Amino acid sequence: MPELRQDYATKEWVIIATERAKRPHDLIKGRSDPPPLPDHDPHCPFCPGNEHLTPGELFALRDGASPTGQWRVRVVPNKFPALVPDGRPQRSRRGLYLRMEGVGQHEVVIETPEHNKTLALLTVEQVTDVVRVYRARYQALNENPANELVLIFRNHGERAGTSLVHPHSQIVATPFVPVPIRRQLYEAERHYDAMGRCVYCDILAHELEAGERIVVDNTHFVAFVPYAARGPFEVHILPKVHQASFGELPDEQLGDFAATLRTVLRKLYFGLKNPDYNFAIITAPHYQQNEPHFHWHLRILPRLTTPAGFEMGTGMFINVALPEENAQFLREVELPEG
Amino acid sequence: MPELRQDYATKEWVIIATERAKRPHDLIKGRSDPPPLPDHDPHCPFCPGNEHLTPGELFALRDGASPTGQWRVRVVPNKFPALVPDGRPQRSRRGLYLRMEGVGQHEVVIETPEHNKTLALLTVEQVTDVVRVYRARYQALNENPANELVLIFRNHGERAGTSLVHPHSQIVATPFVPVPIRRQLYEAERHYDAMGRCVYCDILAHELEAGERIVVDNTHFVAFVPYAARGPFEVHILPKVHQASFGELPDEQLGDFAATLRTVLRKLYFGLKNPDYNFAIITAPHYQQNEPHFHWHLRILPRLTTPAGFEMGTGMFINVALPEENAQFLREVELPEG
Repeated sequence: MPELRQDYATKEWVIIATERAKRPHDLIKGRSDPPPLPDHDPHCPFCPGNEHLTPGELFALRDGASPTGQWRVRVVPNKFPALVPDGRPQRSRRGLYLRMEGVGQHEVVIETPEHNKTLALLTVEQVTDVVRVYRARYQALNENPANELVLIFRNHGERAGTSLVHPHSQIVATPFVPVPIRRQLYEAERHYDAMGRCVYCDILAHELEAGERIVVDNTHFVAFVPYAARGPFEVHILPKVHQASFGELPDEQLGDFAATLRTVLRKLYFGLKNPDYNFAIITAPHYQQNEPHFHWHLRILPRLTTPAGFEMGTGMFINVALPEENAQFLREVELPEG
Repeated sequence: MPELRQDYATKEWVIIATERAKRPHDLIKGRSDPPPLPDHDPHCPFCPGNEHLTPGELFALRDGASPTGQWRVRVVPNKFPALVPDGRPQRSRRGLYLRMEGVGQHEVVIETPEHNKTLALLTVEQVTDVVRVYRARYQALNENPANELVLIFRNHGERAGTSLVHPHSQIVATPFVPVPIRRQLYEAERHYDAMGRCVYCDILAHELEAGERIVVDNTHFVAFVPYAARGPFEVHILPKVHQASFGELPDEQLGDFAATLRTVLRKLYFGLKNPDYNFAIITAPHYQQNEPHFHWHLRILPRLTTPAGFEMGTGMFINVALPEENAQFLREVELPEG
């Protein structure tokens, strides 16, 4: 019997289609090991030596204090930006419709000089560098009230929409709060007004107690498969102590966040043979930083199935895997040393 | 400069990313002609002669009056249903969360006995048969108030999530109104309460007057690229005279709807080399049939680009094509006779 589950935070229902349920084995069937890549590609714009192929550097972490030292993580404007910095987000009419200039920011975080080292294969120190850069750029962009929402995300693999293989993430700042994010905030506010608590804090407490969907339980962060996961092996990572916005992530928790993220990515990489995935950090918008009702979280969704006409027509998802089974599978994936 | 456009019906913004804009040529680059398929596959469960491989027939159109005549269109239960008929949509708690049994209907419409004739290659009479069957099943399912929403959709091609090549559509009835559909209804109600008119009727009138996004303008139906299209070559088809629910489609408009749909699918097929696509018929739920504020429509979205982490994180779409250019391209596609 299929099961319908409601997401406690968004109130959206998800179909857990056990009649079509796939074992992890079926979902990765036919996947071969990823083709080996060189650690340097002379044509890659993100490889060292090709820095002139990207627009001007916005930020970097370097070895030593010298500005000419080798960079470890590098941030540049996106060469084909979805939104651009110059202009004003003023609305105007075009016939019946509202429009505005596509104002905002679109940056690329080059995560490592090595062409073939995806995030799952970096050291904890390297991943800590990456999330440190995420936070630095988040805080810098968030200072400008015109950047109402700052979204950090990563596309891994062709099915996840990436075109460049060199490991990188992206950051987009939008000049307004996207409607679906506003609705998620609204549901969180409703919960807060009713219960006096953050809905994500309530979910966290429940998941830690239930245990069956937990993937990683670290000092400051928890990773779990959500009860109403939208697809196989979706994983959410939340800070244990309430933080509305990603910018609030304190120094002493950076390493723990990086370690949690890295462990989850490694479990996907080694357990599911390097699946394509997207992740995004969902965080409070500019004017709602530090509020008690929202709670930032990182959502990872492997691209193992294809949303189709049903999802397009209803906005509702069909998940062919059981969240509890997925969590158990990920808990049991044994990782190589390192 | 990228442009932000608001969907007048849903109030959601879409990024029209002209900086990354693709010409139709770029979007279909590398596509080869579809591999030829046989008109009959002895292993296909939807081919004539294999009727015993599907669950029991629910409905069919046959040549002549005889129940043993050759079927032209055939409806069967989905063998791997997302929702199943037996059970009650009663909510219960599992810890913090709401759940219910996955109750509903999931049917398959086999559109033609011919294995290799996709909808774009059928005659107008055949497509009229298909939409006649859509309406018959819609009306039958909608009679039961437990089926709160009846969604008809089609997945064409692997990137659109289909696994069987034999031409078919699907119908799912859900025991509740999915949250994103409820929100779309709510926005339509707000517009109606403010303006006293259906928001889709207003859009239709505007599009017919503006002309630049029109693809097909027939007697009873219009096809156009929406102002805030979510992806390249998205097309909406609407009845010109207000109809809240697909079940209201009158006999005398069936042929015109079929002809409009067929023309759009043929323009995609011949103009863009048989792209993968999804379509879905968005219609009023059971308890809102015949209301003045909603207006059913068919949405076609070719799968030419890949929604990625940005879309997952914000729920907002990036379209790399200009709707006006896409409409002009489709208007100019010349179709072969037939």
